[in-house]
Amino acid sequence: MAKPTDAAWMARALQLARRGRYTTHPNPRVGCVLVKNRRVVGEGWHVRAGEPHAEVHALNMAQAAARGATAYVTLEPCSHHGRTGPCAVALIEAGVKRVVVAMQDPNPEVAGRGIAMLREAGIEVTVGLLEAEAQALNPGFISRMTRRRPFVRLKMAMSLDGRTAMQSGESQWITGPHARAEVQRLRASASAIMTGVDSIIFDNSRLTVRAAQLGLDEAEVIAERQPLRVVVDTQLRLPQAAACLREPGRTLVATVSGYDPERRAWLEAAGAEVLVLPTGDDGRVDLAALLRYLSEQELVNELLLETGATLAGAMLDAGLVDEMQLFVAPTLLGGEARPLFALPGLTRMAQQRPLEILDMRAVGRDWRITARPERRQE
Amino acid sequence: MAKPTDAAWMARALQLARRGRYTTHPNPRVGCVLVKNRRVVGEGWHVRAGEPHAEVHALNMAQAAARGATAYVTLEPCSHHGRTGPCAVALIEAGVKRVVVAMQDPNPEVAGRGIAMLREAGIEVTVGLLEAEAQALNPGFISRMTRRRPFVRLKMAMSLDGRTAMQSGESQWITGPHARAEVQRLRASASAIMTGVDSIIFDNSRLTVRAAQLGLDEAEVIAERQPLRVVVDTQLRLPQAAACLREPGRTLVATVSGYDPERRAWLEAAGAEVLVLPTGDDGRVDLAALLRYLSEQELVNELLLETGATLAGAMLDAGLVDEMQLFVAPTLLGGEARPLFALPGLTRMAQQRPLEILDMRAVGRDWRITARPERRQE
Repeated sequence: MAKPTDAAWMARALQLARRGRYTTHPNPRVGCVLVKNRRVVGEGWHVRAGEPHAEVHALNMAQAAARGATAYVTLEPCSHHGRTGPCAVALIEAGVKRVVVAMQDPNPEVAGRGIAMLREAGIEVTVGLLEAEAQALNPGFISRMTRRRPFVRLKMAMSLDGRTAMQSGESQWITGPHARAEVQRLRASASAIMTGVDSIIFDNSRLTVRAAQLGLDEAEVIAERQPLRVVVDTQLRLPQAAACLREPGRTLVATVSGYDPERRAWLEAAGAEVLVLPTGDDGRVDLAALLRYLSEQELVNELLLETGATLAGAMLDAGLVDEMQLFVAPTLLGGEARPLFALPGLTRMAQQRPLEILDMRAVGRDWRITARPERRQE
Repeated sequence: MAKPTDAAWMARALQLARRGRYTTHPNPRVGCVLVKNRRVVGEGWHVRAGEPHAEVHALNMAQAAARGATAYVTLEPCSHHGRTGPCAVALIEAGVKRVVVAMQDPNPEVAGRGIAMLREAGIEVTVGLLEAEAQALNPGFISRMTRRRPFVRLKMAMSLDGRTAMQSGESQWITGPHARAEVQRLRASASAIMTGVDSIIFDNSRLTVRAAQLGLDEAEVIAERQPLRVVVDTQLRLPQAAACLREPGRTLVATVSGYDPERRAWLEAAGAEVLVLPTGDDGRVDLAALLRYLSEQELVNELLLETGATLAGAMLDAGLVDEMQLFVAPTLLGGEARPLFALPGLTRMAQQRPLEILDMRAVGRDWRITARPERRQE
């Protein structure tokens, strides 16, 4: 049974967990608060993979005061032996009296084991408090565990009339510095950033996290981890001189068999890693297979998709976009300019793609729209 | 000198003035509050042209209590003799001690005369309190007085990717009932509604205010005044069977010389009024001349423009759009669908049309964006 004050302590634990937003990859963001006699005796969050879990930080702070305390944890304490032993065991050994858990471990193969360990030790366990908030902290980790693919967040910048660039391909930052900083933070919270090769050819995007543009206190530390760069490149057209190949971090070029071996050698010499994937129905890289690979082999939780109309439309058509972040610049580019999405075959109103708009808010002089595709009704 | 409590009373007067939003055409919306000993002794607003002004309503309510009171008026009291004599004289005769005015009369030929009359009678007058709010009440009246053209509000409904209909012309309401009610209220607050003939041909729009869809208490009374319908129709292609010709109210068809006289006779027989205007540089109706006519001959304050990409683009290009109301439906129509604006000749980023986004808010499942064009930087 949840008590009236439980929600406030769990909210504090969620707040702590959020501090790991940019650094826990590939682990989930987790926060923990230890409370005794209505006072916090210990708290912590998971900072970085390889470092202690949130519960361990909180127990270290509480020391003997943990005995008889209530632990608020945003994610079920682990039951497996990692670098520091299972957190469930640590809570038991510290003499914690009650544990409140926001959500079970989403991995179907382990979910509930940590909770069972605590209960077997006689500890009272409450599960599900502020569960939706806890899930919102880790959409990528949950997606990887339950769907074996990353949570895909599509970011686009458009004019108010839904255009991304001129017909000629001419483009430039149409959004202002506040929006660009938001995009930097989206990059920093992603495990990987994906784009189509044409975006690289046209814009020579670097797809990196730049500390100076993050607008965060710990920018330098955050930018030490560069998200994996993924370029979808069916015909292996990535230029050897692409700027992204010269940046810190890894660049994965996803292609299909039949490429020119000389080009592959060139690209590998320039620093790219070439990944050969099955061909999809449209003759291009099988996007679902790519996402499966990124999830299983690269442990990608959140994937930020920053690309043009073609790949964006293909991902949307394949049902592989979970969330859209549209940055809207206060400008008009006109009816001839490049569209946001190519959605070939969409010719009748009945085929339109319904969305749910979750949020619109001002970001400097621009606006940010958060939306998600509704399940297809066809 | 304004006193600390003045703003609260003026805010009340502004609130009263807003009650005339749908009915004062072609007059401005005006509110008045009479205050004595920190108590309201009279208040009123202008309801309808031909009926008393706000000050008269307030003085009638106050009777003898007006003596020594302070009057808060959202617009300078009139100095001319209308049906009830000048309001400035009425305030003087009632023995009002002080008058606080939010804004001068915008008509350059009369501005300040009412204030001068009050001051000559020994009344203390304060001008400019909450002036911006008072101006926002009457953008159309101010525009007509100072620019000799209506305030033009462009309303469009679009998908999130900036599309209004399918390539085939197939369209349907993409926004929901809440957004449609907002559009009805925009229509009801306008003096006239303008469209291009193609919108009538494709959609057979009626361009009327429907009481049942207004969502307002006084809907029936409001819908008694149907805004003037204006169809821009250079080649006189309006079908005689157009639904808008059979609705209550007037339909003005703006064309240029060279039309087929038989067609004109047909349309007039069907109830249209045909207006022949000069030809603009593009061979079509001179839009600036049309707006001048509507302002001077039809006393149009606010003009609601509900039309397709071509006329919307032409109005925008001519610098004749003052405000945009974009209703955004949570759906995608794809890169082949019809654009929001045709802006021919816009091919380089340097030619983009900057806007200022003033507001975005949820309207049912849709969103409403209020924006205005920035002055051209070319």
